[in-house]
Amino acid sequence: MKRPAHIARRMADIEPFHVMDLLARARRLEAAGRSIVHLEIGEPDFATPEPIMEAGRRALADGHTHYTPAVGLPALREAIARFYQDRNGVEVSPERIIITPGASGALLLVMAVLLDPGDQVLMADPGYPCNRHFVRTFEGEPVSVPVGPETAYQLNAGHLEAHWGERTVAALVASPANPTGTLVPRAELERMADLVARRDGRLIVDEIYHGLVYGEPAATALSISDDVFVINSFSKYFGMTGWRLGWIVAPEDYVRPIDKLAQNLFLAAPTPAQHAALAAFRPETLEILEARREAFRERRDFLLPALRALGFGIPLTPEGAFYIYADSSAFDTDSQRLAERLLDQAGVAITPGLDFGHHRPEAHVRFAYTREVAVLEEAVARLRRALG
Amino acid sequence: MKRPAHIARRMADIEPFHVMDLLARARRLEAAGRSIVHLEIGEPDFATPEPIMEAGRRALADGHTHYTPAVGLPALREAIARFYQDRNGVEVSPERIIITPGASGALLLVMAVLLDPGDQVLMADPGYPCNRHFVRTFEGEPVSVPVGPETAYQLNAGHLEAHWGERTVAALVASPANPTGTLVPRAELERMADLVARRDGRLIVDEIYHGLVYGEPAATALSISDDVFVINSFSKYFGMTGWRLGWIVAPEDYVRPIDKLAQNLFLAAPTPAQHAALAAFRPETLEILEARREAFRERRDFLLPALRALGFGIPLTPEGAFYIYADSSAFDTDSQRLAERLLDQAGVAITPGLDFGHHRPEAHVRFAYTREVAVLEEAVARLRRALG
Repeated sequence: MKRPAHIARRMADIEPFHVMDLLARARRLEAAGRSIVHLEIGEPDFATPEPIMEAGRRALADGHTHYTPAVGLPALREAIARFYQDRNGVEVSPERIIITPGASGALLLVMAVLLDPGDQVLMADPGYPCNRHFVRTFEGEPVSVPVGPETAYQLNAGHLEAHWGERTVAALVASPANPTGTLVPRAELERMADLVARRDGRLIVDEIYHGLVYGEPAATALSISDDVFVINSFSKYFGMTGWRLGWIVAPEDYVRPIDKLAQNLFLAAPTPAQHAALAAFRPETLEILEARREAFRERRDFLLPALRALGFGIPLTPEGAFYIYADSSAFDTDSQRLAERLLDQAGVAITPGLDFGHHRPEAHVRFAYTREVAVLEEAVARLRRALG
Repeated sequence: MKRPAHIARRMADIEPFHVMDLLARARRLEAAGRSIVHLEIGEPDFATPEPIMEAGRRALADGHTHYTPAVGLPALREAIARFYQDRNGVEVSPERIIITPGASGALLLVMAVLLDPGDQVLMADPGYPCNRHFVRTFEGEPVSVPVGPETAYQLNAGHLEAHWGERTVAALVASPANPTGTLVPRAELERMADLVARRDGRLIVDEIYHGLVYGEPAATALSISDDVFVINSFSKYFGMTGWRLGWIVAPEDYVRPIDKLAQNLFLAAPTPAQHAALAAFRPETLEILEARREAFRERRDFLLPALRALGFGIPLTPEGAFYIYADSSAFDTDSQRLAERLLDQAGVAITPGLDFGHHRPEAHVRFAYTREVAVLEEAVARLRRALG
């Protein structure tokens, strides 16, 4: 096959989700009759809550299938603003809320509106792999800062101070983070917002796992400053992954530019999803979501000590999301090889560190507790036999 | 309000949909009790066909709300491939079909995978405004080639020959086109495909209005070459605008890179929409769609001579889409001012040329026949009074 002509240089820097190869291997094993426990998938096992489904069906019955404004349904923007008020006690103007096709669409718009070629964005390594690829896509330069348990795998003001350079325009943090499940403490977020503001840069805070926190509620960056970009999503806490719906809260003077960009790049987020999401903040939905959060907490509280007992190194208790990021070097110096062995021998699929960056990926794996406790018990039993 | 820091330079070149201001003005008039006929909107008035709606409701009932693969549901890719076989007699491997969040997502992926900074893409002016913005977004340079009625407002091989330069990597054509409704003849498409191949470039063909052609069926570029990018959508012919679903047919060696990019930038297209679209190719759906196509033809056949009789200059019969692009200079040398006057005085909203490029926009307006004939009759009567 001939080499494709004119493939953009950026494509050499954009990596696929490596775990997809592992997933394909798992599917082949399943097709051959093997039982596989899937702990590699960053998607809750729960279906979309029934009140949201019902609102989606009603939206279709009512014929809501035409375009919405590029920034989203006014009623949904208002509902999100009320949610910030109710849950976080923060006043956010609906005008600053832009509905997007998933948090992916949100990250895409924010990077496109901010970055000129060569502009740098600081981010933690390990981290969500697409972050650096969004930056690269718009010809920016992701600057991955190695982080470890000593800062809860998060950037702090010291990192920003040390790595902020001539070409740095923004820092991106996620709280809770993927793959580590750790939070940025409020005081640290304040220090970072302050430092970034003094450097005339922008702080981007990914809060897509915000609803899924198991100790003290996490502080939204919006309670600290109106000048940050906050990214959120209906995917994780609200159980709407496949609907593809997220949002940005933007500083006021970026709203018009983002609107313009959204018109051109997306036209709008999916309409049935937007109508369905109107039911996401209703008391009966929130009751379901809170019960699910409790279920996730139980899963974490089972899996975390069990993995530690097996010999995985987990120095911190992950406080949110549904991930445990574990040092696996006691078992193998190559986490990719370990993951393949655990899949083949134990029938347990986990994600090797490679997908999350370049800082010691070979020593780490990620467990997603997106299966019920009985399944996690089976997984731990299998792992014990394979590693014992 | 302070100036936003670090707004990307590309934002200065990306224009909003200017018609939005006119639409807002129309909404204000309507809120004040005025009757407005909307001929400015590029969205069919028809609801999504019932079999697709039913499939959407069933998808929700069956809990299809999780992520799909980044390139889309295998069954949908296969259904599209079968449709090419059935309707166009063209064999297309489902492996080459990538499901996207609307044709917008398709254009975004194709430009991102092709363009390095400074790379040029040739396109017709007038044309769909987002095209040049997609190119600019990825730091490419859109090269807008002025076209007129002598080439049916389309690029031809002569244009490509004349404008192809050192930095040109692709040409983009749309058939039928927005705003003109004109087609590229098959022989011309062949010449262009041939010329672009000889230049080692890529031909991108937007076929999103392909189902809406009123004379001889349009030839898909896929019947000419496997080496073109074809972009299509469920929005227009299939009546699924708000669902946000489209597709790319890519040359084989671009499929993996586009898959990788789609994983990172979108995760996947909306799941309920993909399941709903499985019903788009069923005989009972196609029967509805063909009846709608007939209705669009009747609208065109009413509106076209009526506008000509009023004095609009329409040298060609638009053969597809649902647009009539008309020379309005007999009434006003400034089409924006004319559109505002027709809105205020006649209560008829149309789109001034400004949204479609820089080649004589002030002399043109676009009429979208997305309303039934009785409404078009009323519009023409109003226009006659205002212009008479």
